[in-house]
Amino acid sequence: MRRIITLLTDFGTADGYVAEVKGVLLSAVPDADLVDLAHDIAAGDVAAAAYTMHRAWRAFPPGTVHLAVVDPGVGTARRALAAAVSGRFVVGPDNGIFTHLFDLVRDERVVELPVPPTASPTFHGRDVFAPAAAALAAGAAIESLGAPLSDPVRLPLPPLSVRGDDLAGAIIHVDRFGNLISNVPGDRVKSGARVRLGAYELELQRTFGDVPAGELVAYVGSGGTVEIAVRDGSANSVLGLGRGAEVRVALRG
Amino acid sequence: MRRIITLLTDFGTADGYVAEVKGVLLSAVPDADLVDLAHDIAAGDVAAAAYTMHRAWRAFPPGTVHLAVVDPGVGTARRALAAAVSGRFVVGPDNGIFTHLFDLVRDERVVELPVPPTASPTFHGRDVFAPAAAALAAGAAIESLGAPLSDPVRLPLPPLSVRGDDLAGAIIHVDRFGNLISNVPGDRVKSGARVRLGAYELELQRTFGDVPAGELVAYVGSGGTVEIAVRDGSANSVLGLGRGAEVRVALRG
Amino acid sequence: MRRIITLLTDFGTADGYVAEVKGVLLSAVPDADLVDLAHDIAAGDVAAAAYTMHRAWRAFPPGTVHLAVVDPGVGTARRALAAAVSGRFVVGPDNGIFTHLFDLVRDERVVELPVPPTASPTFHGRDVFAPAAAALAAGAAIESLGAPLSDPVRLPLPPLSVRGDDLAGAIIHVDRFGNLISNVPGDRVKSGARVRLGAYELELQRTFGDVPAGELVAYVGSGGTVEIAVRDGSANSVLGLGRGAEVRVALRG
Repeated sequence: MRRIITLLTDFGTADGYVAEVKGVLLSAVPDADLVDLAHDIAAGDVAAAAYTMHRAWRAFPPGTVHLAVVDPGVGTARRALAAAVSGRFVVGPDNGIFTHLFDLVRDERVVELPVPPTASPTFHGRDVFAPAAAALAAGAAIESLGAPLSDPVRLPLPPLSVRGDDLAGAIIHVDRFGNLISNVPGDRVKSGARVRLGAYELELQRTFGDVPAGELVAYVGSGGTVEIAVRDGSANSVLGLGRGAEVRVALRG
Repeated sequence: MRRIITLLTDFGTADGYVAEVKGVLLSAVPDADLVDLAHDIAAGDVAAAAYTMHRAWRAFPPGTVHLAVVDPGVGTARRALAAAVSGRFVVGPDNGIFTHLFDLVRDERVVELPVPPTASPTFHGRDVFAPAAAALAAGAAIESLGAPLSDPVRLPLPPLSVRGDDLAGAIIHVDRFGNLISNVPGDRVKSGARVRLGAYELELQRTFGDVPAGELVAYVGSGGTVEIAVRDGSANSVLGLGRGAEVRVALRG
Repeated sequence: MRRIITLLTDFGTADGYVAEVKGVLLSAVPDADLVDLAHDIAAGDVAAAAYTMHRAWRAFPPGTVHLAVVDPGVGTARRALAAAVSGRFVVGPDNGIFTHLFDLVRDERVVELPVPPTASPTFHGRDVFAPAAAALAAGAAIESLGAPLSDPVRLPLPPLSVRGDDLAGAIIHVDRFGNLISNVPGDRVKSGARVRLGAYELELQRTFGDVPAGELVAYVGSGGTVEIAVRDGSANSVLGLGRGAEVRVALRG
């Protein structure tokens, strides 16, 4: 069985950075199966990368190595890490990019990767993370890669709270369609519930097909949380609201 | 032999949607060979996806599974389909995305995919189409995936017609270079023929190298139809014309 | 061992051109391992493609076939080439896209690829280069693909020179982060050296983490040459300087 290594970066698709990382991986593990997740994460947007990794990591088969490099702090004192998580592996900067995973599981084994003096201080993706990912794909034990790291950095995720009759959360991701994705769990709310976002008030529907084109709609999205969209349009553009905006969903009719 | 599964979507390369689909595919068929065709189809542009699929599908070896998800109607009453077509397979929404294929061949066997009640109403790519594509890649018979579907949706492709001394068609695709691609077949027209597009009149050349940089040029493109380009520039920007614009090519000197 | 074929193009990720090339490759060599390097090179920007190829080619294992198609002169008299270079292979237009490689190595064996009369004059990527890359991946000898070509086109790379107490070079690439990458070799200059670019004067640091966010910084980048960046920003936007701008680095304290 070929070992899968996925790549998630903000390197874009116009430069050779992704190429250099792939070259290192394939030189070390020529039969690895490289799988591009996304390379157009906004430059330095660790929160967007963390949300994307959150959605994707567990969909892959056990044994998969997820290499995630959105790393605005490269070359500073920020640590480098690798972890075994529920049968998969993750490798990347210790900047919160794996926050959601570590919040979700209880079985993570995290190690701090040493940064060799020869590593470029601006490209740990190539010189630190790719070699570690390749080693894991080749069968190395996570413990062999570094000393245990007990306190990986976590992003401060917006809290959920009950406010009067509402469950209150926030927009945590804006996707390429301009859909606004909240952290309000769909299994806590009911169809028809009142959803409030900024000055807008909506009823929770099943899908965006339930409203005419161009209209605002709220529904439980494919990630399991409440989303707000404009059918065949961009809620992000139309509302002028993005990450961090408060969302309230009524808990009672 | 590993089975090839190609992916064509409008999911973009900044989110995790492509990643979730790939995870489902590789969890079901770990040794599948995933091949990205294009993920930056304009959001919801079924016609652009249909043209792209048209150009690409038959270039792949028999046995290839083409997964195509540009699906603005997801979660509505639009049907889901899979088909066996000239030795390849296609899987996607029944919204016309396979119009050109079904127009071209006579051997298609199309089935309607059931939508399980657990499928997210906004992400059939992950929950309906990817599992079907994985099943086909693993060797399932097309008939095992659903009931026969005899009337798949077709996009209304612009007609060709003879108007006086001209063959009249339309621009059906605009590519990333701004080249305007028509549906006028190159084998019906002759080098030197007069080509008219909007207020412009040109002579059909062999290639854009036949005119100086910055000049407008018409030629038979790599898809076998007449194209209009600006050498080292964008005909789409310069002319302000796009999909749907009429093109006429003289049938006689 | 599966043979790796990499793809570097300016075809973008919204059209089917990459797909058609991949179809040709996989139809000829079904077990080839296709690896996307970058497809969003600016349209027709041979210099950017050449820099990207320069950074990437040697990172891949021996036997890799690099297919590089940024080809504004397709269909003109420009030649087509393939080459064996230090155990890897390169295939593409003879327009300077391999300038850096051929400057670096002394063992290249270059052949001119014949252009069959059936090749589309606007898509040699599909009809000339992909078949040659597939043949090499399948084990063909480079000499079997065409007659020797002794004078491949080279881009005029900006020279390095000593000007008074400075080493003078130029910006040769601007990356997606807006970092300005020069041709001044890092091993010729010392930490703390005075770096001048346009009206700006800086001290050479170790990495962009050495300055506060939003500030201009010079350092030796991951490609081994002096770069100028804005931490968490874009030097390209802030300075209004790009490829070709002169860079001077002091050789003495």
